[in-house]
Amino acid sequence: MKLLTFGASLRKGSFNKQLIRAVVPIMQNFNGVEISHIDFADFRMPVYDGDLEVSEGLPESTQKLAQAIHAADALIISTPEYNASIPGSFKNAVDWISRDKSNPLDKKFLLLLAASPGALGGVRCFPHVKVTFEELGTYVYPKVFALSKAHEAFDVNGRLKDVATQERLQGLLKGYLSFVQTYLKNQ
Amino acid sequence: MKLLTFGASLRKGSFNKQLIRAVVPIMQNFNGVEISHIDFADFRMPVYDGDLEVSEGLPESTQKLAQAIHAADALIISTPEYNASIPGSFKNAVDWISRDKSNPLDKKFLLLLAASPGALGGVRCFPHVKVTFEELGTYVYPKVFALSKAHEAFDVNGRLKDVATQERLQGLLKGYLSFVQTYLKNQ
Amino acid sequence: MKLLTFGASLRKGSFNKQLIRAVVPIMQNFNGVEISHIDFADFRMPVYDGDLEVSEGLPESTQKLAQAIHAADALIISTPEYNASIPGSFKNAVDWISRDKSNPLDKKFLLLLAASPGALGGVRCFPHVKVTFEELGTYVYPKVFALSKAHEAFDVNGRLKDVATQERLQGLLKGYLSFVQTYLKNQ
Amino acid sequence: MKLLTFGASLRKGSFNKQLIRAVVPIMQNFNGVEISHIDFADFRMPVYDGDLEVSEGLPESTQKLAQAIHAADALIISTPEYNASIPGSFKNAVDWISRDKSNPLDKKFLLLLAASPGALGGVRCFPHVKVTFEELGTYVYPKVFALSKAHEAFDVNGRLKDVATQERLQGLLKGYLSFVQTYLKNQ
Repeated sequence: MKLLTFGASLRKGSFNKQLIRAVVPIMQNFNGVEISHIDFADFRMPVYDGDLEVSEGLPESTQKLAQAIHAADALIISTPEYNASIPGSFKNAVDWISRDKSNPLDKKFLLLLAASPGALGGVRCFPHVKVTFEELGTYVYPKVFALSKAHEAFDVNGRLKDVATQERLQGLLKGYLSFVQTYLKNQ
Repeated sequence: MKLLTFGASLRKGSFNKQLIRAVVPIMQNFNGVEISHIDFADFRMPVYDGDLEVSEGLPESTQKLAQAIHAADALIISTPEYNASIPGSFKNAVDWISRDKSNPLDKKFLLLLAASPGALGGVRCFPHVKVTFEELGTYVYPKVFALSKAHEAFDVNGRLKDVATQERLQGLLKGYLSFVQTYLKNQ
Repeated sequence: MKLLTFGASLRKGSFNKQLIRAVVPIMQNFNGVEISHIDFADFRMPVYDGDLEVSEGLPESTQKLAQAIHAADALIISTPEYNASIPGSFKNAVDWISRDKSNPLDKKFLLLLAASPGALGGVRCFPHVKVTFEELGTYVYPKVFALSKAHEAFDVNGRLKDVATQERLQGLLKGYLSFVQTYLKNQ
Repeated sequence: MKLLTFGASLRKGSFNKQLIRAVVPIMQNFNGVEISHIDFADFRMPVYDGDLEVSEGLPESTQKLAQAIHAADALIISTPEYNASIPGSFKNAVDWISRDKSNPLDKKFLLLLAASPGALGGVRCFPHVKVTFEELGTYVYPKVFALSKAHEAFDVNGRLKDVATQERLQGLLKGYLSFVQTYLKNQ
């Protein structure tokens, strides 16, 4: 199973980047998982503009991200919540990706995580993020994980301090892995 | 693959019942599909009330619907849209089902359809219906089908008159079937 | 300003009934507010069924709730969250009300609260509840209040124990009141 | 009443720009409406990045749009639907605006329109757009207008060809105007 992971934030100190970095070693523990971990900031795109698309085509960064998605069977994305919904920056990238004629997100699996310093952990963004990926044909895993008080959640080694939270995350990752692998074995 | 199908309406002349009845013969054409088609009106439940649950437990109709879901691998439900969202009657049934300790909707597959006499075909209810099933662990298929002008859509034999619409529905059903069967082969 | 208040739960010990009962004395402190506080359980309705509506018309309880809404300028409703969305029981009541030809919810003001024993306080139900009321023409106040850990939130006199929470609620109620009163003065 | 209007698209030939241009003369017919019509493309912003905000502050275009919103009592925005939700480009602008400490969208009125060449007219984006503005304290008008088949909807003078559609739009605009003016008269 080829897994693509990233935190959907451009900010260097992003809590979502921290969370997804904590996910990578857990996933690497599982058999048969080959991880491609990317930095969302390496795929900066201009703000989508239909005229720009007509005159210049898809940005190189969009094409590269599309290829990374193409090469993957499944994704895990940790996303911030901005103003109770999906960040414009993340939605903008998905809007660009959706203009790739091959529609790389179709029939890919996706697990969504979120992290925020608030008490809700970014949980309100999920329905908005799901709607767009489902529109594009992505098999969005029903269960999600939201990390509240993310500014206090990690130790100096980037691991989740709270054992119960760690176990909740591990259980989710295991469930997702098992779902995707069951499907892939027979394709 | 054991498939449970119903139209999530109590009304006898429901367009959603008509649509799901048009789906049954299409699905029966596919190999390996065993259909259990039920009438939602045979599972009438009281309005959910926590005190009623404590004093009397789950209604027999809830238990029977829970068993029907348990026995299935996958569901196809055609739902009306009431006031831009899920019908209270349908949500009430799901709320009751969710109180069954075995959580029969967990890890089941679900394809959602909708039909309405309006121009939007009930499309606005999907995000609301999906949120609840996903919360319960159901693998909701990302693509959906909304039948607009449902009062003019069927011929006297209950088939969809419009060929393009029929083909769009068939394509969706085939995609769903293929997804679920690929998964189930390995279980 | 005539204000109608209720907790959208049938259960006697409902946290939402507790929360709305804590709201009533706060609102009574404000000048010019005349409160009609009702018990949602006094307006029990059957599960909506289009055939039932045709044969028997609107239930008496629906008509009475419609009248109570008609008589009000503004509403405050505290709603549970069931399975990440609006309770079927509450949606069912709104679906029935929407069948009243006079559409009593049109041009009424509404403030939404929620309470739950969980950490999220029911916050995920708001978008779903709002969609339906807005479809019916209700002026839904943008800001909301979600009470988490509701089982520990009240003292023996039914007041919110936590002062910061109390002040947050009071600020919201004051803002809502001010908005509605400004509008009504000129009608 | 000071009204700010724009189509939330960067594309020159945008259907939403056409729709909002058709709205302006209708609103100018009403007494007491002073319109400031802007082109969203004159306020191009970079993709939001928290590090960029820290190092450079708000972009000049954000500040100018924030000032235009500050100067208005009410807004009418026509928005495209991208991938069943809010365009990333539009959400990105709102995310930037939300970082202005004065929160210019708080307590402003907003009417949402949408236009698309499809049969749904962009109707699926509304719940997502509303959630974000309501989070920011904007009084979002409950009723909306979605123009389907927008590529065939306008005559050479930019007016809506279909009389019933025109009347539906005019009725909505009148209702919105009346709501806002009633409120403003007494402030």
